[in-house]
Amino acid sequence: MTTIKPRTLQGFRDFLPSAMIPRERLIETAKQVYRSYGFNPIDTPTLEYLEILLGKGSAETDRQLYSFEDQGGRNVGMRFDLTVPLARFAAQHIGTLGTPFKRYHIAPVWRGERPQKGRYREFMQCDFDTIGTTSIASDIETVLVIHDLMLAIGIEKFTIRINNRRILNGLLEKQGLLENSTLVLRALDKLPKIGAEKVAEEMVSAAGATADQANELLKLSELSGTHDDVLTQLKPLVAGSETGESGLENLSSVLAGAAAAGISQERLELDVSIARGLDYYTGMIVETFLGDLPGIGSVCSGGRYDNLAELYTKQQLPGIGASLGLDRLLAAMQELGLTDGESTVAEVFMPFFDGDRLNDYLRIASQLRSAGVRVELYPEPKKLDKQLKYADKRGFQVAVIMGGSEFDAGSCQIKNLAARSSSEIDISGGVDLAVAEIQKILAG
Amino acid sequence: MTTIKPRTLQGFRDFLPSAMIPRERLIETAKQVYRSYGFNPIDTPTLEYLEILLGKGSAETDRQLYSFEDQGGRNVGMRFDLTVPLARFAAQHIGTLGTPFKRYHIAPVWRGERPQKGRYREFMQCDFDTIGTTSIASDIETVLVIHDLMLAIGIEKFTIRINNRRILNGLLEKQGLLENSTLVLRALDKLPKIGAEKVAEEMVSAAGATADQANELLKLSELSGTHDDVLTQLKPLVAGSETGESGLENLSSVLAGAAAAGISQERLELDVSIARGLDYYTGMIVETFLGDLPGIGSVCSGGRYDNLAELYTKQQLPGIGASLGLDRLLAAMQELGLTDGESTVAEVFMPFFDGDRLNDYLRIASQLRSAGVRVELYPEPKKLDKQLKYADKRGFQVAVIMGGSEFDAGSCQIKNLAARSSSEIDISGGVDLAVAEIQKILAG
Repeated sequence: MTTIKPRTLQGFRDFLPSAMIPRERLIETAKQVYRSYGFNPIDTPTLEYLEILLGKGSAETDRQLYSFEDQGGRNVGMRFDLTVPLARFAAQHIGTLGTPFKRYHIAPVWRGERPQKGRYREFMQCDFDTIGTTSIASDIETVLVIHDLMLAIGIEKFTIRINNRRILNGLLEKQGLLENSTLVLRALDKLPKIGAEKVAEEMVSAAGATADQANELLKLSELSGTHDDVLTQLKPLVAGSETGESGLENLSSVLAGAAAAGISQERLELDVSIARGLDYYTGMIVETFLGDLPGIGSVCSGGRYDNLAELYTKQQLPGIGASLGLDRLLAAMQELGLTDGESTVAEVFMPFFDGDRLNDYLRIASQLRSAGVRVELYPEPKKLDKQLKYADKRGFQVAVIMGGSEFDAGSCQIKNLAARSSSEIDISGGVDLAVAEIQKILAG
Repeated sequence: MTTIKPRTLQGFRDFLPSAMIPRERLIETAKQVYRSYGFNPIDTPTLEYLEILLGKGSAETDRQLYSFEDQGGRNVGMRFDLTVPLARFAAQHIGTLGTPFKRYHIAPVWRGERPQKGRYREFMQCDFDTIGTTSIASDIETVLVIHDLMLAIGIEKFTIRINNRRILNGLLEKQGLLENSTLVLRALDKLPKIGAEKVAEEMVSAAGATADQANELLKLSELSGTHDDVLTQLKPLVAGSETGESGLENLSSVLAGAAAAGISQERLELDVSIARGLDYYTGMIVETFLGDLPGIGSVCSGGRYDNLAELYTKQQLPGIGASLGLDRLLAAMQELGLTDGESTVAEVFMPFFDGDRLNDYLRIASQLRSAGVRVELYPEPKKLDKQLKYADKRGFQVAVIMGGSEFDAGSCQIKNLAARSSSEIDISGGVDLAVAEIQKILAG
C-alpha cells in the first residue's frame, strides 16, 4: 500500500503538547480574568452565510476569505474575525439577551493571507466586549481587564497606552480637516515607522492639510510629563470643539477611575497620537506594550465604537472591547521565560516496574488522583531507566517508584527527578504522607 | 441603508451564555480528568489537504465533507472527526513525541449531513487516546477515565459496557465465519433495534451463517449473572480459539484492574454482544450509558485499534481511546437538572447606584476581585429596581449594594437575592467580612 504524505497546509499549525500546554494555560487565565468582571462566554458558527461576512472588512479581508459553495448550494465563508460574528449575533439575539451585554469569545479565525513570521492562516482571537452602553464605567473596565490580565499572566512590566479618537477629531474639526480624518489618521498611524517629517509630507500631499496644520497635529506626539501635565497641554488644543473637549474629559475620567481601582500611574500612558487604523473606533482607544519587548507591538488592543451591528439591524448598539493577541503574547512569554517548556500536564510519573503488580500500581495511582494529584502511570513494565528517560524527556519533576520490596514494606520511593534525591514514604495506611512529599517537591 | 438579515446556517448554532456556561464547564471538567491521567492537549488545523481526509471514513463521510479549492488552488477540506487528524499528526510527529503518546483533543468538527434533532453540522468532539502501546494498562485506564469523568460531571448512575472484539472474532473463527465478520457484526449491532429473530435472519441471509450459528452468536446477548458468571459461561464458547481466549483474558484483566482502582462492580457491565459498527476496533470496546436516561444512547464510546495511521506511515501505531459525546451529554445533564440555567459567570452583582461615586464602586469591586470574588459592576447609574431586574434575569444570587449612606458609614449591604434578605457589613477596614458573607450566601 502506498502511503499519503502526512503534512499540514502552509500557514496552519499542529500544536504538540509543549506548545499546547502554555496555550491552554493562557486561554484559561484570560477566561478567569474576563469572568471576574462578569463577561460571559459565547460561541458562534465557524461558517456563516457569505453575505454576512462580505463587505464588513476591507477589500483585503474579502479577498482573504475562505469561501465556497456548500452541499446545499449556499455560499458560505469561514469567519475572519470575531467582531463580524458578534455584530450578527447581537443583531439576532440582543432582544433575548438585554443590554448591557458583556461577552468573551475565544475561538479560531481564518485568513488566506501570505504566511509570514508570526502570521498564520488560522489563528485564535480572544475578545471581550461590552455592548449596549456608552457609559464611561465600561471604558475604565476595559483598561482594568487588560491590567489584571497582564498581571495574571505573570507580566509585571507593561504599559497600557490610552487615547480617545474624539481628541483627534476635535482638533481636526477645529482645523476644518474632519472630512479627511481617515487619511490624516492613516498618516499619523505611521509615525513610529516613518518619522515625523514623512508623516507631515503625507498629511499635506494625501490628506489636504497645510504644513502648519500637519505640524500642529504632530505636536500631539510630543506632549510629555505626568498625566496631569499632558491633560493640561491638551486643553487649549481642543478648546472650543465640543467633540475634542468631551474626548479630553473621557480620558481624564478613565485615568481617575483606573487610579481608584488601584492601577499604578506608570502602567498607563496617555498617547494622543495613537489612532489605530480602523475607522470603526469613535471613542477611547487602548494598546498594550510589554516593557521588555516593546518591539513586538501591542499585545492587547481595542476601543469604543458607536454602532456595532448597523449592517444587520436598525437598532444602534454602541460598545467597547479589546482583543488579546494570543500568538504574539505566547511568543513574547516564551522569549521572556514565562513558559517553562514542559510537555506534560501530569505532576507525578509512576513507572510500571514490577510486571506482576499492575493492579497495585493502579490502586495507588487512583488513591493519589483522589487526593488531587495528577499521575501518569507508564503502561508497560519496561526497564526502569528507560521509563525514567521517558519521564525526563517530558519534564516530570517527581516520580513515585514502587517495586517488590516497596510493596512488601507498604511504602513507595518518592523521587525528586531534578535533584536526583529520593525518600521512602510509608503508604500502608493511605497516601497522605506521599501527597505531602510530592507537594513539597512541586513547590520546590 | 438596507440591512442584511442576521441568521445562521441550518445545522450551525449560536451559543448564548446560558448554553455556553455549562458547555465550558463540561469541557473544563473533561480536561481536568484527562490531565489527571497524564493525557496532554494537542490541536490540529481545521483545514487539511483533501487527500488526507478522503477515503478514511465511509463513502458517507466523504460526501458530507466540507471541501473546496483555496486561494492557492489547493484542494482542502474541513476535518470531519479528530481521529483522521490524529492519525496524520501521529505519522508526522511520533518520532519527536516518542511512545507511548497520550493526548486529548477537544475541538469542533464539521459534517454536511441533514440536520435533525440532536445532530448538527458543526459539533465538538472531545477525545482521548493512548498511542504506541498494546498494554492492558491502557485498556484499564480508558475505563477509569470514563468512570472518573462521569463522577466529576456529577453523574452517579451510569454503566460502562465493556466487550472485546476478539471474543466475537474467536467465536466466528471457530464457526468458520471470520471472513464475513463485518456482515455478522453489522447484524448483531442491530439487536437492540430489531430483536433477535430479525438479527438471526440477517445473519443467515446476508452473512452466510447457518441458523445454528446465528443462534449460538445470539446466545452472547443472553449471558447473565455476575462478571465471574459471565466469564465462566464464555470460556467454553471461545475454547480452542487463540483469539477468543486472549479476548476473554483481556476482559477478565480489565475487570480486575478496574476493581483494584476502586470502581464498583455495578458500574461495569460485560456485554459481549456490543460490536460497535466501525471495522476499526480490534480489542476492547466500551460504551457508557446513563442509568436515568438509557434511551439517549452511549455518551462516551471507544476502543482499541491495531493500526492508527496506516494511510500515512509504514510505522505500526496501535492504540486505544474514547470520545465523549458532548452535545448528547449536555442535553442529558439539562434533562437531569445537573445544569442550573444561570446565564452569568460572575458571583456578585454590584449596582451602580450613586452616579457621583463611580470611582468608589470601582475601588470596592477591585478589592473584591483581588479577594477572588467575581464581580459585575453595572455600567450605568440607572434606578436600582431596574438594575436588580437585570441581576435577577441573569441568575445572580448576591448583590453588594452601596449608596450615599453606606459610603458615609464605610459599609455595604450584602443582599441574598433569592432569600430577599440583606445584611449591612462594615468595609471601612477592608472587604474581608464582606467576602465571608458573600461566600456564605453562595455556599447556600
